[in-house]
Amino acid sequence: MDANDGFRELDRQECLRLMAKVPVGRIVYTRQALPAVLPVNFCLDRDAAVLVRTSASSELVGAIVGAVVAFEADAVDAGTHSGWSVVVMGPATLVTDPAEHARLLRTGPLSWAPAPAPQEVFVRIAPELVTGRELVGGRSLYGVHLPS
Amino acid sequence: MDANDGFRELDRQECLRLMAKVPVGRIVYTRQALPAVLPVNFCLDRDAAVLVRTSASSELVGAIVGAVVAFEADAVDAGTHSGWSVVVMGPATLVTDPAEHARLLRTGPLSWAPAPAPQEVFVRIAPELVTGRELVGGRSLYGVHLPS
Repeated sequence: MDANDGFRELDRQECLRLMAKVPVGRIVYTRQALPAVLPVNFCLDRDAAVLVRTSASSELVGAIVGAVVAFEADAVDAGTHSGWSVVVMGPATLVTDPAEHARLLRTGPLSWAPAPAPQEVFVRIAPELVTGRELVGGRSLYGVHLPS
Repeated sequence: MDANDGFRELDRQECLRLMAKVPVGRIVYTRQALPAVLPVNFCLDRDAAVLVRTSASSELVGAIVGAVVAFEADAVDAGTHSGWSVVVMGPATLVTDPAEHARLLRTGPLSWAPAPAPQEVFVRIAPELVTGRELVGGRSLYGVHLPS
């Protein structure tokens, strides 16, 4: 841990273990050359890809499929100034294989919708880069740190 | 509220009221042409600008000052599938006026660092665009919604 900035870099396995604990993360992408962010519920696939279930007609699908996106999840305790943040970065692709789609209908993220949604699709974010850091209680948070 | 997607657009005042309830948000920006995201603690200034306190030598300052960034805050209850998300978008600028800096040292976001940080600076994200939505319990979440 860097004593100056109060957080510890997490390895890939630590990142994935922490991500698996939270139901919601944030897709970070570019929309019309501007930064965009959207919270979604998700789960991790067997290969650690981030899986998101959405509507084929959603703006999100049009915006991210084929692009490299970041997916962020975190948990912070403001009382103890402790927590963690993980970012998965990679290309977002639509699951088009029927067998794979069928598998994800059984094992992938549930829709939080009250009724079954026709035209549902699964988007995969490949875990090409997985980075994260743990905030150590009592130290500064992420972007708010002591200079070296 | 759109009955198809289960969330309600929030007006600017609702967005700011909700943001004021949470200590941590996420700065979304572009780094080397790729999406980047960093959780930080923050507060809202009198004009609803997002204020972040960080080190003059932080990578964050170099990456966002002078750029248009998005700042996202949210709170989601996975049990009830209810919550909200707010995004403030605008240019990030460094507070350079000594009087303004002195005011923010008194009233701005606290550093979560255990010791005073020399070379601390305040970054303002102008609230040029403030958007948000409330997730209605039992309906789908944000990117996960029923098609129209």
